Amino acid sequence: MRTYDRLCDRFRELHHLAGVEELLSWDQQTYLPPKGHGRRGEQLAAMAGLLHRRLTDPEVGGWVESAAEEALTREERRNLELMGWRHRRAVAIPEALATDFARAAATAWEGWRAARKHDDFSRFAPHLERVVALATERGRCLAGGGDPYAGLLEEYEPGLDPATLERLLVPLAEGLAHLARRVADSPTTLSAGPLLGDFPERGQWALAQRLVRAMGFDLDGGRLDNAPHPFSSGSLGDVRLTTRFRREDLREGIGSIIHEAGHGLYEQGLDPEIADLPVGAPLSMGLHESQSRLWENQVARSRAGAQWLLGELKAVFPDRFATIDGEAIYRALNVVAPGLIRTDADEVHYNLHICLRWELERRLIAGDLEVAELPAAWGEAMGRWLGVEVVSDRDGCLQDVHWTSDFGYFPTYALGNLYAAQLYAAAQPALPDLEAQIAAGELTPLRDWLGAKVHRTGSRLAQAELIEAVTGAPLSERPLLASLEAKVGALYDLG
Amino acid sequence: MRTYDRLCDRFRELHHLAGVEELLSWDQQTYLPPKGHGRRGEQLAAMAGLLHRRLTDPEVGGWVESAAEEALTREERRNLELMGWRHRRAVAIPEALATDFARAAATAWEGWRAARKHDDFSRFAPHLERVVALATERGRCLAGGGDPYAGLLEEYEPGLDPATLERLLVPLAEGLAHLARRVADSPTTLSAGPLLGDFPERGQWALAQRLVRAMGFDLDGGRLDNAPHPFSSGSLGDVRLTTRFRREDLREGIGSIIHEAGHGLYEQGLDPEIADLPVGAPLSMGLHESQSRLWENQVARSRAGAQWLLGELKAVFPDRFATIDGEAIYRALNVVAPGLIRTDADEVHYNLHICLRWELERRLIAGDLEVAELPAAWGEAMGRWLGVEVVSDRDGCLQDVHWTSDFGYFPTYALGNLYAAQLYAAAQPALPDLEAQIAAGELTPLRDWLGAKVHRTGSRLAQAELIEAVTGAPLSERPLLASLEAKVGALYDLG
Repeated sequence: MRTYDRLCDRFRELHHLAGVEELLSWDQQTYLPPKGHGRRGEQLAAMAGLLHRRLTDPEVGGWVESAAEEALTREERRNLELMGWRHRRAVAIPEALATDFARAAATAWEGWRAARKHDDFSRFAPHLERVVALATERGRCLAGGGDPYAGLLEEYEPGLDPATLERLLVPLAEGLAHLARRVADSPTTLSAGPLLGDFPERGQWALAQRLVRAMGFDLDGGRLDNAPHPFSSGSLGDVRLTTRFRREDLREGIGSIIHEAGHGLYEQGLDPEIADLPVGAPLSMGLHESQSRLWENQVARSRAGAQWLLGELKAVFPDRFATIDGEAIYRALNVVAPGLIRTDADEVHYNLHICLRWELERRLIAGDLEVAELPAAWGEAMGRWLGVEVVSDRDGCLQDVHWTSDFGYFPTYALGNLYAAQLYAAAQPALPDLEAQIAAGELTPLRDWLGAKVHRTGSRLAQAELIEAVTGAPLSERPLLASLEAKVGALYDLG
Repeated sequence: MRTYDRLCDRFRELHHLAGVEELLSWDQQTYLPPKGHGRRGEQLAAMAGLLHRRLTDPEVGGWVESAAEEALTREERRNLELMGWRHRRAVAIPEALATDFARAAATAWEGWRAARKHDDFSRFAPHLERVVALATERGRCLAGGGDPYAGLLEEYEPGLDPATLERLLVPLAEGLAHLARRVADSPTTLSAGPLLGDFPERGQWALAQRLVRAMGFDLDGGRLDNAPHPFSSGSLGDVRLTTRFRREDLREGIGSIIHEAGHGLYEQGLDPEIADLPVGAPLSMGLHESQSRLWENQVARSRAGAQWLLGELKAVFPDRFATIDGEAIYRALNVVAPGLIRTDADEVHYNLHICLRWELERRLIAGDLEVAELPAAWGEAMGRWLGVEVVSDRDGCLQDVHWTSDFGYFPTYALGNLYAAQLYAAAQPALPDLEAQIAAGELTPLRDWLGAKVHRTGSRLAQAELIEAVTGAPLSERPLLASLEAKVGALYDLG
């Protein structure tokens, strides 16, 4: 047995333990009884401690060094590189910090939920203070004493540094802000009316099931449940999507389930031979987000996608959609208007929401913003970035779950949008019948193309290599801006 | 910090990790997608390996020795004893055996489910062979090379040896067989008719919720879900009951939810100060089973219990129960007749089912019975013990989930029945209004008495001490036999 193989066994074990952690967290957000949260925090802390101990085990460091001397294939060498990277990052974090962080995040989740329910930021504030302090400490450890935000960012987007991120997001934000102003000045308006009304949850569940099946999501290897903040978790034969519905507005349910199913297809599409090793795992959060965004935006918000959706809507709500045409659905899905809620945002404003969070979380982590000042800072930033007035913390700084544990995560949403636009632009020439297929609800050719180009690749290539290999160019904000300018320009008669 | 406290910290961690294992298993039996079972087995194996490693850690053995020299309270000394016992038992089992067993049990569960679904024993046989082999090996390790069945038995009922068990179960079986023959010879018959009909699942769910609430089960600290084989899991603020319904027969749903809620009350009633230490944990499987059985049999199958149930039934199915009286419900719940299915059995035949399994599992573990011969042996034993003919493996040796992992567990059901009868006989003089309270649906006085006498005690006392302390006598088959002879004798006019 090579040392390399021994190392792989350890990482397979770690993979399974991480799967256990994911289940604990899924359960916490779906079925855990209210009084179970305290103990769940203890369980998550115990798991985090164990994982940390197994990963930082000095034996692992020794194996990484010895394995480097062994005869390895190219794929094995890449896997070894990733294993070493994970080991070194874990070693940088003291065990007590790892367990404290897990415990704090679990109780912060419950605090956030209560604060949001009662629209009372003070219930979340002490939790947030603790999480910010621990995240900052964690980031500092990961950055070897340098910029903590850089350390955190790399957790979700390996290899990405704050300067590169800035070079992508600043021109993106400028371009989108300019487009948003042109839409605001346009006399043309679009109506969401065709998707508004009264849609009982039972029908929306049926619709969600139809949508994920059409996308090729395998429900024998996955589930669909309700959660206050939709997410997906798990991989291969156990991928769990969660969603939520709004009775009076179908856009919430449609958007969230297509989004989560996009994540789910990535996880179901991993190469099962290597999926439990770092080399077979999803590459980064940004790339993961690209898979959800591509289905949500490039597919479902296209003219062809609207045609597909109309067919599904007619099957579930036949009377309501009898006289509505695809163009009306297309327009309803592409209303551009600033708003308070990130997850409700159109494609033009969405990334401005991200830039707002990116700004505020950098300030929190840098110590330039106190938690107590967050509601006011959020209000000021909303005015500046989106021109809207915040009316409540529930629809302000309490709207997102992320800061119960994740800092440096939000920017990956914007990266996901960039990856998605660039990947979809590459899919179009590769699949000449793509639009006709989408309009007909034949979505598996696209799923299979993404499977071959992205899902099955896992982490064999780094993001930059993968994007170059699939699209022929490095990541840029231009494909997204170009496609949005074309689509929105036409819809709003921007000339 | 005393060494004792350090040891407690380790056992708290182990408790939380065991809670994680319980959740994995709960999820497997409720919500896990079909294709997720393979990986769940790997996750359970990884967890079992970790728990085993943390528990067998040589440091732990050293701490146990050092702590014995420290100044400890009586409760702490008992806790130390239990911690040492668990450590020594774990050390007796090699780690590879612990992980192999967990993996085999998880895949056996899926094999059992498929075999039962298709009524095809051959789908379960290879799994069962593997589990029997591993359980035998495990039992042998636990018994220090002696009788493997003795080693397994003690896992569920600490301190119980096969000879003591035999001294209780043989006279119990004789007494029950005698009573069963007298009932069979009686010209009197009882009818289950009042509880048969067509009861949609929605109504049965509502009934189940009412029943557990009436018993004082806290649904903010627990859940109720469906499972093919009902069970309960978790403790304190996260206790999960599962149940199943039969559309045409309310007895299934009523019996199973009251049974599981009895288990659940034990877990919710533990002393929160020490519930995550061995001294605060439930004492044994037999005692656990006594808490479910007491509610299912002594309470719900009494005349007063029937009165309570009638009230709940009228609330949920008002038309159906408008003209039915408590006596009819009482008789319907006490029909005595031999049958194929253990979980459907009346109180007289139930323990004969247990004796059958006790006999067969001892033969499997002793190597006197091959797995391939099990269906035939089951058929022969059913004729001998219960006088019924087995028509299918689904309703024969595939009916129970237990042998996917647990050998030596079934006898604890019979012990539970003995404990329950003896405890209830002690509750009656202690709670003079008990029957009137039960009839009125006021069940919390009984819950609180059990809480004070059993639940909060945890493992501060051994079973024999607890039974002596609460009932004034050692465990015996006589209270159960006496109460059944009285009840069944009167109902069947046995004179």
